[in-house]
Amino acid sequence: MIGQRFIQILEDHPYFEFGGLYASERSAGKTLAEVLRIRDHRFRDDTLDMPIEKMEAKTVAASSRLAFSGLPSEAAKGMESELAQAGLAVFSNASSHRMSPDVPLLIPEVNHEHLDAVKDQESFANGGFIVTNANCSTTGIAPPLKALDDAFGLDIVTVTTYQAISGAGYPGVPSLDILGNIIPHIGGEEEKIETEIKKMLGSWNGAFVHSEFTMLANCARVPVVDGHLEAMMLRMDSSPEVEEFVAALESFRGLPEGMSLPSAPERPVIVMKEPDRPQPALDAFAGEPERARGMAVAVGRVRRDGDWFKLFALSHNTLRGGAGGSLLNAELAKAKGLL
Amino acid sequence: MIGQRFIQILEDHPYFEFGGLYASERSAGKTLAEVLRIRDHRFRDDTLDMPIEKMEAKTVAASSRLAFSGLPSEAAKGMESELAQAGLAVFSNASSHRMSPDVPLLIPEVNHEHLDAVKDQESFANGGFIVTNANCSTTGIAPPLKALDDAFGLDIVTVTTYQAISGAGYPGVPSLDILGNIIPHIGGEEEKIETEIKKMLGSWNGAFVHSEFTMLANCARVPVVDGHLEAMMLRMDSSPEVEEFVAALESFRGLPEGMSLPSAPERPVIVMKEPDRPQPALDAFAGEPERARGMAVAVGRVRRDGDWFKLFALSHNTLRGGAGGSLLNAELAKAKGLL
Amino acid sequence: MIGQRFIQILEDHPYFEFGGLYASERSAGKTLAEVLRIRDHRFRDDTLDMPIEKMEAKTVAASSRLAFSGLPSEAAKGMESELAQAGLAVFSNASSHRMSPDVPLLIPEVNHEHLDAVKDQESFANGGFIVTNANCSTTGIAPPLKALDDAFGLDIVTVTTYQAISGAGYPGVPSLDILGNIIPHIGGEEEKIETEIKKMLGSWNGAFVHSEFTMLANCARVPVVDGHLEAMMLRMDSSPEVEEFVAALESFRGLPEGMSLPSAPERPVIVMKEPDRPQPALDAFAGEPERARGMAVAVGRVRRDGDWFKLFALSHNTLRGGAGGSLLNAELAKAKGLL
Amino acid sequence: MIGQRFIQILEDHPYFEFGGLYASERSAGKTLAEVLRIRDHRFRDDTLDMPIEKMEAKTVAASSRLAFSGLPSEAAKGMESELAQAGLAVFSNASSHRMSPDVPLLIPEVNHEHLDAVKDQESFANGGFIVTNANCSTTGIAPPLKALDDAFGLDIVTVTTYQAISGAGYPGVPSLDILGNIIPHIGGEEEKIETEIKKMLGSWNGAFVHSEFTMLANCARVPVVDGHLEAMMLRMDSSPEVEEFVAALESFRGLPEGMSLPSAPERPVIVMKEPDRPQPALDAFAGEPERARGMAVAVGRVRRDGDWFKLFALSHNTLRGGAGGSLLNAELAKAKGLL
Repeated sequence: MIGQRFIQILEDHPYFEFGGLYASERSAGKTLAEVLRIRDHRFRDDTLDMPIEKMEAKTVAASSRLAFSGLPSEAAKGMESELAQAGLAVFSNASSHRMSPDVPLLIPEVNHEHLDAVKDQESFANGGFIVTNANCSTTGIAPPLKALDDAFGLDIVTVTTYQAISGAGYPGVPSLDILGNIIPHIGGEEEKIETEIKKMLGSWNGAFVHSEFTMLANCARVPVVDGHLEAMMLRMDSSPEVEEFVAALESFRGLPEGMSLPSAPERPVIVMKEPDRPQPALDAFAGEPERARGMAVAVGRVRRDGDWFKLFALSHNTLRGGAGGSLLNAELAKAKGLL
Repeated sequence: MIGQRFIQILEDHPYFEFGGLYASERSAGKTLAEVLRIRDHRFRDDTLDMPIEKMEAKTVAASSRLAFSGLPSEAAKGMESELAQAGLAVFSNASSHRMSPDVPLLIPEVNHEHLDAVKDQESFANGGFIVTNANCSTTGIAPPLKALDDAFGLDIVTVTTYQAISGAGYPGVPSLDILGNIIPHIGGEEEKIETEIKKMLGSWNGAFVHSEFTMLANCARVPVVDGHLEAMMLRMDSSPEVEEFVAALESFRGLPEGMSLPSAPERPVIVMKEPDRPQPALDAFAGEPERARGMAVAVGRVRRDGDWFKLFALSHNTLRGGAGGSLLNAELAKAKGLL
Repeated sequence: MIGQRFIQILEDHPYFEFGGLYASERSAGKTLAEVLRIRDHRFRDDTLDMPIEKMEAKTVAASSRLAFSGLPSEAAKGMESELAQAGLAVFSNASSHRMSPDVPLLIPEVNHEHLDAVKDQESFANGGFIVTNANCSTTGIAPPLKALDDAFGLDIVTVTTYQAISGAGYPGVPSLDILGNIIPHIGGEEEKIETEIKKMLGSWNGAFVHSEFTMLANCARVPVVDGHLEAMMLRMDSSPEVEEFVAALESFRGLPEGMSLPSAPERPVIVMKEPDRPQPALDAFAGEPERARGMAVAVGRVRRDGDWFKLFALSHNTLRGGAGGSLLNAELAKAKGLL
Repeated sequence: MIGQRFIQILEDHPYFEFGGLYASERSAGKTLAEVLRIRDHRFRDDTLDMPIEKMEAKTVAASSRLAFSGLPSEAAKGMESELAQAGLAVFSNASSHRMSPDVPLLIPEVNHEHLDAVKDQESFANGGFIVTNANCSTTGIAPPLKALDDAFGLDIVTVTTYQAISGAGYPGVPSLDILGNIIPHIGGEEEKIETEIKKMLGSWNGAFVHSEFTMLANCARVPVVDGHLEAMMLRMDSSPEVEEFVAALESFRGLPEGMSLPSAPERPVIVMKEPDRPQPALDAFAGEPERARGMAVAVGRVRRDGDWFKLFALSHNTLRGGAGGSLLNAELAKAKGLL
C-alpha cells in the first residue's frame, strides 16, 4: 500500500520524476495495473502500464539519485544500506534503521534540524544516506505533541489507537479476523510509538538526545480502510485554558520561516470544532493545498478535565504516515541542498 | 436490543417468568418475531409469538411483581417512578435514576451492599423500588477496577472505548455513518463513565459516598455488532508485580461468600493470556456456566510500564452491560429477600 | 445523499449556477456542513456555508429556472407538479412521475428523443415541465441493454443486484441490519426495474410504446457505501460471438452525432478485461473526462454459455443513477433549446 | 474453516469419535486453541487442547476407520486416494474427486442412491472409499432444485451468489479487498455449480447419467462471515401456482422413508414468509433439531412472474455446504452398512 501511495504522489510531482519501480521477485515483471489496490485515486494510463522491475541496488543507482522505500523491515535492513552505499539518498518507511544513532527519524514540521545527522553516515561521502520516517501511528501524534511540548511541556501522554487495515500492507489482515471485529494487538506497534516519539521530540547536537516524558500506548486494528484515529489523554507541565491549548495546535507550523515544500500542508494540525470529528471516512484526507491532501493531522474533541486534556487525532496512515512523509522528507533534503 | 436480550435470558430462567411484554405505541400490537434483531439466539416459537402490549403502569402491575426496563431515558424517568409507585420492583437500564441519592447503581459483584438503599425509597413501603445498572461501558470496567481498587488502590484510570453498534439500540447508528468508519463521539457516555464508576466503587452508609480517584474517558463507536472493548491505562497507590496484578483480577469474586445467583459467572473477570485477545467477535460471550454466557469481563494484554499498567477489557454490552446486568440485580434482590 | 451529490456536481458546473438549496423543515436553517455525509468529495468552503432554505415552489421559482429534485417520492408527487406549474424545468430523481404518459424517463444516451414528451405537459405552456430519471438500479443496466437491444434484440434479461446503502438515503439502512449481512429485499425495486426499462427502451411517437421482452429482477442490499453492482444473464434474438457482443458495448455512444454534454462520459459503457472487475470500491467512479466521473457503466466478466450471455455491470448509484443523471438530462434539455 | 467446523460438530456426536486431528506441516504441532477462528461456537477445553498432528495416511489409518477431509484440492487429490487405499472411508470437501466416474457427489436428501458408486472403487475391496460433497454454493441450491425437479421438471435455472468470506478458508480473502466491497469473481465456482448440480440431480445405474437443463451461474464474494445467499430465477417444464411451488419445497424430505440420521434437519428446505428473509446474519443456522443447526436451506421471497419463478436461498457454507454435509454423508454410509 505504501508503494502504491508513493506512485500516486510522485505521478505529478513538480520536480521529482520516476526512475523506475522496483520490487521483490513476487511482483517483478508485473505492471502497476496488475497489483493495484488503492481505491481513491485514478492513476494515469501510462502510470498503470509502468513495469515493476526486480530490485537491485546497482540497477536503481543507475537510474536514480533518490530511492523511496516501502520495503518490509527485514528486506529493508540490508537493501537500504546497499542503496545508500551505492550513492542513493534513501527515504524509508521501514523500521530497521529508525533508531540508529546517525539516522534521522524525520518529520519536517517536527524536527527538520535532525536531517543534519545524515552527514555523519559513512555513505554520505559519496552522496548516499538514509532518512527514515516514523511508524504511521507515531507520525499521527507527533505534530500535535510537538506543538504542545513547545508550548506547555509534556509530562504524561497516553494514546490509544484505532488503526486502519491498510497499515498492515497487502494481503495484510485476513477479512475473517477483522470484519465486524477489533484486534487489540499490532506487533511491536506500542513499543515503536513509545520510543520513536522521544527521539523525534528530542534534539540533535552531533548525537540524538531523547526527550523525557511518560508515553503510554495501547494499539488496536479496526475495520477501516485508511486513516489512523488516536485517542489521547495528556497532562502537561503547565495547565493552560482550553483556548490556549487549541491556539497552540492551530498556530503550529514547524517548518523554518520561509521554507516552502510542495507537499507540506499549510497547517500541519487542523483543529475541528464539530462534536463528532475527526472521522476516518470523512477526514483522513485533511490537508491543503491539493498536493498536501492527507498530510495534515486532524484533531478534534479537545476537552479539559482538571489538569488533564483529552482529544482525538486522525492522520492518513499511508500518506502522512507513509509515502507522503517520505516525500516531504525528500523535499526537505532538496531544500537544504542535500540532493 | 436490550429489550430483546431480556426476553432471551428470561426465556428459560429458573424462577422468573414472563408476565408480559410492554413497549411504546410504536411496537405495541406486534409480536417479538416482527421486531427481532438478535442474530445469535434462536428464540422458542412461543416466545416469538408473544404479543407486545402498550406499556401502562397499572397493566404491568396487574401481571407482575418485577419489571425489567430497557426504556429510553426520557421515557424511563416518569414511567419507572410510576411502576415503582404501583408496587413493582423495577430493574432498569436507563440512566435517568442512576445518580439519585436513594437509587442503587448496582453490580452484584461490585457493590451488592448498595442494594440496601432501596429501603429509603418512598415507594418501598408498598413493595416498589428502583434498582439501576450502570451504563454499558462503565459496567465493563467496574469488576476489574473493583478488584484492583481493593488490592492496590486506584489513583489514575484512563479508559478509551471501542463500542459496538448494538449499544445505540435500533434503528440506532445509520450504516452510512459507521460502515468502514469510527465515530469518536457518543453523547454523554464519557461523563457517565467518569461519574458512575465513582458511585459504584464508593460506599453506602445511609448515603452514598463516592470513591475518589482520577477517571478519564474517551469514547468511540466502531463497526462491531456486540461487545464493548475498552483500552485502559492505570496507575495505582501501590505498584505490584504483573503476576500480583493478574492474580488480583483472577481471584476476584465479589459476591458474598456462599451466595449463588443463577446468572452470575463463576469468575466475573477472566484474564486471557493469548497475545491478541480479547476480541469482540471471539470473546463477547465469555462467562461460565452456560446461563452466564456474556456475563464475564474478559481482560487481556496486561502489561506494566514503570508504575503504570495497561490492559484491554471486553464485555457484552447488552448482556453484562444491559439485560443480563439487570437480571443479576433482580436475582440478588431475591436472594436478599426483597422480592 | 442525492441532494448532496447534486451540490457536488453543480459546484463547478460550466453553465448552471446555484439559485439556492431547499429542503423540508427538518434540514431548513442548517448549512450543508451540518448535514454533510459524502465521504469522497471535498466541498469548497463557500459551498459548505450555503444555507438550506425551506422548500416552497414560489421561493424556488423566484430564484431559479431549473430545479433538481432529490425529494422523497411522497413529497415529490405534489411539490414537483407545483414547481413545474410555477414555470420551472424540474429534473427529478423521484419515482412519482416516472410512469406518467407525458413525462420522459430519460437517459440521454438511451432515449434522448423521449425528451419531446415534455411539450405535451400542461405546464409547458409557461415553460415548466418535469423530466425524471430512472431508479438507480435500472439506470445502471439501461445503457448496456440499449446497446445490446439495438445490436441483437433482447429476448430474456435477468438481473440480480448488489445495491449500496447510499441508495437508501440518510439515515437509511440501520447498521444493525446490514453490517456483515445482506438484505434480500428493497421495497418496490424489482417492480421498478421490470417496468422502467421497458419504457426507456421503447419509443415516443406522441405516446410511449414500451419495449417487449422478459425482464426479471432480484434485488438485495449489501454493506457497500457507493456503487450498485448488477449480475446479468441474458438471451438475445441473435447469438453473436463474444467479441461482437463486447464490440457492441464498447462502440455504444447513444448521444446524437456531434452533441457534446459536459457531464456525459466519452464512453457510456466501459468493458473491463480483468478477471475480477468491476468492483464497487475500485470502479464506481468510472467515467472520463473528469467531469463525468461516476457517469459510465463499467461492465466486466462477459461470458457466453450456449445462447446465453453472462456479465456484471457496475454504476455509481447517486451519480449516474441519481444526481448526475438528472444533471445530464438538464444539459440535454439545454442543448435541445428547452431552457 | 471447514476443518474447525468438523471439530465443532464431531465434539459431541452420538457415535463418531475423534481418532486424531491431522494437518499440513504449517499447523502440525499446534493445538486447536492456537488456530481457532470460529466465532459462534464455544469448544470444550479438552477439544481446544487437542494436538494437531502431521497428516500421513498410515498414521491416520492406524487410529481411524473414517477420515473427514477439508484439505485444499491440490493436496486432496493424492492424499485422499492414499487414505482410501489404506482402507479408510474418506468423506471429502475437496473438489479433486467430485466428477470422477465412480465417486459419489453426495447429499443424502438429494441423491442417497449415488452412494452405491463407492462399491466400484478399487479401494473398496479393503474397505476404503471416497465420498465427496459438492461445492458449498452448489449444495445450497441442490435441495430446493431437487424438490422442484421432481415436482415440475427444471428447464432453465439461473443462480447469482452472495458468498461469505469463510468459504475462502483462512487467511483467505484479504480485508483490503472485501471491506465495503464486492468481488464479482470466485475462481472456478461458476463452473462447479454448472456441472456438479447436473451430476447430483442425475442418476446412478452403474454409471452416472447427468441431468439435462440449462444452468447459469454468476458468483461474487461479499463481506459476510458465514452463509451463502443465492438469488435464483427459474423456469420449469410445467408452471405451477405459487402455493404448489411452495408446497413442493416444504414437503420435500429426500431421505428414504424411515431413515433417521442424527445430523439431518427435519425439513431440508424451510420456506420463510417474511418479506425480507432469509438473511445470512439471522438465518444461516436454520435447521432443527439442535444437532442440525446450519443444515437446512432457508428459502424466501418466492415470487412468480409469468412462467418464471424467483426466490432467494440461504445455506450455511461451512456446515450444510462443508463439514456438516460430509458428516451427514458419513451418517448415511453408516446407516447403509458401509462402515
